[in-house]
Amino acid sequence: MTALINRRSFRIEWGQCDPAGIVFYPQFLIIFDAATGELFARTGLSAADMRREYGIIGMPLVEQGAKFLLPCRFDDEVIIESEAGDWGRASFTVRHRIIKDGQLAVEGFEKRVWAGTDPERPGRIKAKAVPPEIIACLSDSTGATLCRPAH
Amino acid sequence: MTALINRRSFRIEWGQCDPAGIVFYPQFLIIFDAATGELFARTGLSAADMRREYGIIGMPLVEQGAKFLLPCRFDDEVIIESEAGDWGRASFTVRHRIIKDGQLAVEGFEKRVWAGTDPERPGRIKAKAVPPEIIACLSDSTGATLCRPAH
Amino acid sequence: MTALINRRSFRIEWGQCDPAGIVFYPQFLIIFDAATGELFARTGLSAADMRREYGIIGMPLVEQGAKFLLPCRFDDEVIIESEAGDWGRASFTVRHRIIKDGQLAVEGFEKRVWAGTDPERPGRIKAKAVPPEIIACLSDSTGATLCRPAH
Amino acid sequence: MTALINRRSFRIEWGQCDPAGIVFYPQFLIIFDAATGELFARTGLSAADMRREYGIIGMPLVEQGAKFLLPCRFDDEVIIESEAGDWGRASFTVRHRIIKDGQLAVEGFEKRVWAGTDPERPGRIKAKAVPPEIIACLSDSTGATLCRPAH
Repeated sequence: MTALINRRSFRIEWGQCDPAGIVFYPQFLIIFDAATGELFARTGLSAADMRREYGIIGMPLVEQGAKFLLPCRFDDEVIIESEAGDWGRASFTVRHRIIKDGQLAVEGFEKRVWAGTDPERPGRIKAKAVPPEIIACLSDSTGATLCRPAH
Repeated sequence: MTALINRRSFRIEWGQCDPAGIVFYPQFLIIFDAATGELFARTGLSAADMRREYGIIGMPLVEQGAKFLLPCRFDDEVIIESEAGDWGRASFTVRHRIIKDGQLAVEGFEKRVWAGTDPERPGRIKAKAVPPEIIACLSDSTGATLCRPAH
Repeated sequence: MTALINRRSFRIEWGQCDPAGIVFYPQFLIIFDAATGELFARTGLSAADMRREYGIIGMPLVEQGAKFLLPCRFDDEVIIESEAGDWGRASFTVRHRIIKDGQLAVEGFEKRVWAGTDPERPGRIKAKAVPPEIIACLSDSTGATLCRPAH
Repeated sequence: MTALINRRSFRIEWGQCDPAGIVFYPQFLIIFDAATGELFARTGLSAADMRREYGIIGMPLVEQGAKFLLPCRFDDEVIIESEAGDWGRASFTVRHRIIKDGQLAVEGFEKRVWAGTDPERPGRIKAKAVPPEIIACLSDSTGATLCRPAH
């Protein structure tokens, strides 16, 4: 079982860079967050679909980390690759790599939980089991497995 | 009736500046948004108090604008002054000035509405009349008029 | 002479939205800034090319404004249209429209200057005449006129 | 030798929170970055002083990580505590803790390098030895040791 890798190229924006001319590091985490959304959209379910079908409120972070190997600058064209793994009952890890000119520039991970509201405690968040079909989609490296919304 | 002016000094952060070494302009709007919150807290009501007492969901923007007169750079110490006026039934305008070394560096306005949920259309926003005591507090330049939470 | 309109569709990201579930308004200005960069890239010159060929350090803002007509929410697919006009000697205005489901959701403008370093005062910015070929490219609605880098 | 702890309280801003009503996680990293600046200012040297005295261009990140233990919401009053340690020749680690109602809500670290320009390769960054007086200031838990600018 190999992971589906979502790959996208983009250009570094002016507003993502700092006075040293390189990406201000929290911007990479904003990029990672959006890339996780794009990876999960490869299931065939939009974020709204996922919330409605599975009663989740999102995928809050438990832990994250990143290493910065090469600086990225304004207007650099880079590639981001994202994949999910380490599937636990309610948690999983998304790994991201940012590649510039064929070299690894940044690598990071996000450990997240599949989270719904707690029916017994309104306003509180409760971890829920990740649906097996979500795991199946994101574990098919061909990208051919899709979850279809029920309606 | 003169407006209450909320005044605060702060330093420009590294992450607010761009590769030209000056504040990336949308950062000023983020600063304005927070300054509006600080101005309204001068009523004596926290944001949570205001939401609970008046059933509002926030003060969404209708229009905004800003002029940039002098560049602000990393670690510059600046002052922001904010005041509300142009009170309509449900709308008002907050004006902000950022002052650097005694000179006006940025000025801007935010036209906002006092907005609650629409009881007849769940999930939709409806403009509501601004409570007169809120206007009274923010129109007392001494800052002595306060709205107290009912509990 | 009609303006070249640069058009791009994108999805609203989770991190661009606030607790009311709608885009936090300064995020639209970040989107506008990037869209201006994309519009100018339609000249055929990258941001780096423009800096090198014309000795500019960027296009700093003098004034901006926006009107918010319809809320945009997480995962909404929207279109942004951008065009430049009001060409002065050293200044110009970029107008942006964000369209959701065929309706205008946000409109805004950015008045910017074409700015280089001041040879007589190191570290200071000086407005420069916008090169006529840049104006020509951005005034050709077909997008067929390009400025080619000299090397 | 114990570390100087810089402590500051602040309120979570509306624009730092996401549609789930909690802080959008990259915002914590923006908070950490600013807090590192505040910690280093406890040496008595401003960011500009440090750049001028020591010829550095900044303190770029090599690695970072964070754990999210309790959600922080709009208008929550929280405390951030920051301290530097693990002093290597040119690198060090800043640890941050965000505390809410006396409980640890977020903890994170930033591994950074003390970096100047490379005299032999213009435009490139080179790690430099951290000045011993900087280490001395940040290792005095009383905060009484200061580095004074030479002019």
